[in-house]
Amino acid sequence: MSKNLTKRGEDYSRWYNELVVKADLAENSGVRGCMVIKPYGYAIWEKMQAALDKMFKDTGHQNAYFPLFIPKSYLSKEASHVEGFAKECAVVTHYRLKNAEDGSGIVVDETAKLEEELIVRPTSETIIWDTYRKWIQSYRDLPLLINQWANVVRWEMRTRLFLRTAEFLWQEGHTAHATEAEAIAEAEVILGIYATFAERFMAVPVIKGTKTPGERFAGAVETYCIEALMQDGKALQAGTSHFLGQNFAKAFDVKFDTKEGGLDYVWATSWGVSTRLMGALVMTHSDDNGLVLPPKLAPIQVVIVPIYRGEDQLAAIGAKVNPLMEELKAKGISVKYDDRDTHKPGFKFNEYELKGVPVRLAIGPRDLENGTLELARRDTLAKEVVPMEGIADRIVSLLDEIQEAIFTKAEAFRDANITEVDTYEQFKEVLEKQGGFVSAHWDGTPETEERIKDETKATIRLIPLDPKADPGRCVVTGKPSPYRVIFAKAY
Amino acid sequence: MSKNLTKRGEDYSRWYNELVVKADLAENSGVRGCMVIKPYGYAIWEKMQAALDKMFKDTGHQNAYFPLFIPKSYLSKEASHVEGFAKECAVVTHYRLKNAEDGSGIVVDETAKLEEELIVRPTSETIIWDTYRKWIQSYRDLPLLINQWANVVRWEMRTRLFLRTAEFLWQEGHTAHATEAEAIAEAEVILGIYATFAERFMAVPVIKGTKTPGERFAGAVETYCIEALMQDGKALQAGTSHFLGQNFAKAFDVKFDTKEGGLDYVWATSWGVSTRLMGALVMTHSDDNGLVLPPKLAPIQVVIVPIYRGEDQLAAIGAKVNPLMEELKAKGISVKYDDRDTHKPGFKFNEYELKGVPVRLAIGPRDLENGTLELARRDTLAKEVVPMEGIADRIVSLLDEIQEAIFTKAEAFRDANITEVDTYEQFKEVLEKQGGFVSAHWDGTPETEERIKDETKATIRLIPLDPKADPGRCVVTGKPSPYRVIFAKAY
Repeated sequence: MSKNLTKRGEDYSRWYNELVVKADLAENSGVRGCMVIKPYGYAIWEKMQAALDKMFKDTGHQNAYFPLFIPKSYLSKEASHVEGFAKECAVVTHYRLKNAEDGSGIVVDETAKLEEELIVRPTSETIIWDTYRKWIQSYRDLPLLINQWANVVRWEMRTRLFLRTAEFLWQEGHTAHATEAEAIAEAEVILGIYATFAERFMAVPVIKGTKTPGERFAGAVETYCIEALMQDGKALQAGTSHFLGQNFAKAFDVKFDTKEGGLDYVWATSWGVSTRLMGALVMTHSDDNGLVLPPKLAPIQVVIVPIYRGEDQLAAIGAKVNPLMEELKAKGISVKYDDRDTHKPGFKFNEYELKGVPVRLAIGPRDLENGTLELARRDTLAKEVVPMEGIADRIVSLLDEIQEAIFTKAEAFRDANITEVDTYEQFKEVLEKQGGFVSAHWDGTPETEERIKDETKATIRLIPLDPKADPGRCVVTGKPSPYRVIFAKAY
Repeated sequence: MSKNLTKRGEDYSRWYNELVVKADLAENSGVRGCMVIKPYGYAIWEKMQAALDKMFKDTGHQNAYFPLFIPKSYLSKEASHVEGFAKECAVVTHYRLKNAEDGSGIVVDETAKLEEELIVRPTSETIIWDTYRKWIQSYRDLPLLINQWANVVRWEMRTRLFLRTAEFLWQEGHTAHATEAEAIAEAEVILGIYATFAERFMAVPVIKGTKTPGERFAGAVETYCIEALMQDGKALQAGTSHFLGQNFAKAFDVKFDTKEGGLDYVWATSWGVSTRLMGALVMTHSDDNGLVLPPKLAPIQVVIVPIYRGEDQLAAIGAKVNPLMEELKAKGISVKYDDRDTHKPGFKFNEYELKGVPVRLAIGPRDLENGTLELARRDTLAKEVVPMEGIADRIVSLLDEIQEAIFTKAEAFRDANITEVDTYEQFKEVLEKQGGFVSAHWDGTPETEERIKDETKATIRLIPLDPKADPGRCVVTGKPSPYRVIFAKAY
């Protein structure tokens, strides 16, 4: 397989788009802005889902499923939600088609018009809090810790595979609590889960923080986030966890009898990560040869390619490979033996490099004689001839090593791209020449935040959690600032 | 917990509706025809998904994800598909909302009208075959064995929780093959998976067969199905697998280079089961006391209820229960210890009966003295006092026993309700007085099928797979018939 992949240095954006398609992760569909997630990409997403789902369940959350559609009137109920939330939504207005009278195909049946339009959910706070009103009467019904895996739709004008699509897949957690402190603790627990997942499974280092009021989720009192840095120096918001206060409980009239005999509105959180994480995964690790996948999320962790001439050699190699396959599978490793006779080894090597398979083994007739095989690491592209004996154990530890190595590499890159600046000139220069996270003092006003965004396209990605006291002066206005915040251009 | 559940004998339909809500499986939402699947119900669905997903993957299928929306024009491409398929679909016509000028809320932005309307998928053959055209060039690209887990929408006018809802969850498999024989074999493999899943996991006995042309899926050459019998004598179609011939390949121009150097249209199948299975599960096993769940799909397999007065007794019971919990969990059994002090044991007993927990253990102070506990089976409601020693092993085999027993009971009921009739009078009498499956001769014409449906509301549920030669005469027209087919009133 010839890769023909644009190099990152030439055009990072094009490299990304090509890689997602060529590595069989996803492609655009016939529906504007909607993608098809191909089996190889979906297998990675399934591994992400499984890991996150286990972490949610281990912390007491349950899954449920709420309707795809939201009556239009629900969206108006929480004022800042409707005000702040993008109104680019798919709107269902009719419920029937009919054959066109001229025989030209099918048309919308205008007599089947909905009394109230339905919105395809862009997020589910409103329909869920309308339901929670029926579920919550007493403090005994709390906390309610619910998650759903679902598709959502936001009618984006400019879309990119995984990063910004009209329809995307995600999980959205919606919890209800008896106290403010419990709800805040929940939002922080989830932030911790997201960070742990990003770092341990995706091998993507993240910074935890909170958003400025201007960047908060519409309807939230506080938005917690994790931010990752892509290889082109742009930030990517990888997950958000919102403390919603009593805003949705008030909007949907969800009150409960308190333990103390009173009546109060319920406290809420919501939180989500989406198929956008697939974009972060690709852009953090991959290189000019294709994907680099962390072993914990790779659908195929080890591929074995036979180098042979004729059926006899192939049979002899197969006799060695089959017990190795069994041994690896018994150790929980997903392994593929590619003995297709329709493609040459070089084609296969390219294909698995492109697809980011962490470890590749090649076995030829000389290896059979010597009791060896060739072992290649996708992350470093290093190859070595190693003894067949003990190879399964070696692979187990190598997969751990690779998982660790790509995290360390990404972390070193991220750390090398956090720059402290003290003047607006430096700020602009760093953004222009290097990119990355810019750590700077800000006077805390939306006006300055807005001005910086207009002039540099950089936004405040986050206010660090538990910022260390480090008084200084705003790079723009010179007004006092208690600590630095993190700016970047972002996806 | 007081159940207040209508009895099956009084009003089966009402019993079902009440049970689904009271057992916390699902409820109606604020959106007409769309349900909320509650955590307890969703946990059962997740177990169904896991079992089916494993069976699909073990037979070489991969998951993927295709868009929620289908351009209206796609639906017109396969003539019999558009003709036969219900046109009751949710139609997206606009992509933006805006604030009403009079401040009354939000309204549809009429300037944001789609050039071509989008249909929320009622099933995905059209969008998937539009995609397969890009994926399939050669016999080397075949077979393509793909499944997706998704939500779909069919605008049903009369809805019932799980059985018929506007939005439902399902899996839909869509496969592409080089030969007709391969595609037919695939459709049959899937039928086998569905039957095995229904019988081994759901403990629901099914009959396999094919549909008459009038009951086939729109666009299918052959529709295979499994049919189950509910306790009220009505049939429920539990899964379908369609051999689609080359119909969709022709409609979407999907051709491939054959191994022999020719060019041919691709052969196809599609197949699905949905959250409707939840309805079949409830209606097959449950009784006037509530749900009866097969252990393999029960979210909680064993519940332990302490009977105590005061903290000391509770602590003493807890000291016995905790190691038992660990032992059961180590054996892969999901167990819950309900030591809530807000509810009495009788309330808890009722609650777990209602929710169909297969095994209930109760431990009181006398049990502590005697080294015993009370063991109750949900399916038979039998209770006995048993020794604490060896209880974990006993539970493991008891769960298997219950799984088997509820299948056997359902099978005996089903078998007792297949009646062979030889005259139309008998046919009508059996339908009226007993219900169930009626095995009768039919002359093979759509006219007779239609007449029977009009006059009795019974439809041909299936033509048995590999029917035994058993010539006879149609109960209506007296014309010759090679074998009997199965009629029933159906959900």
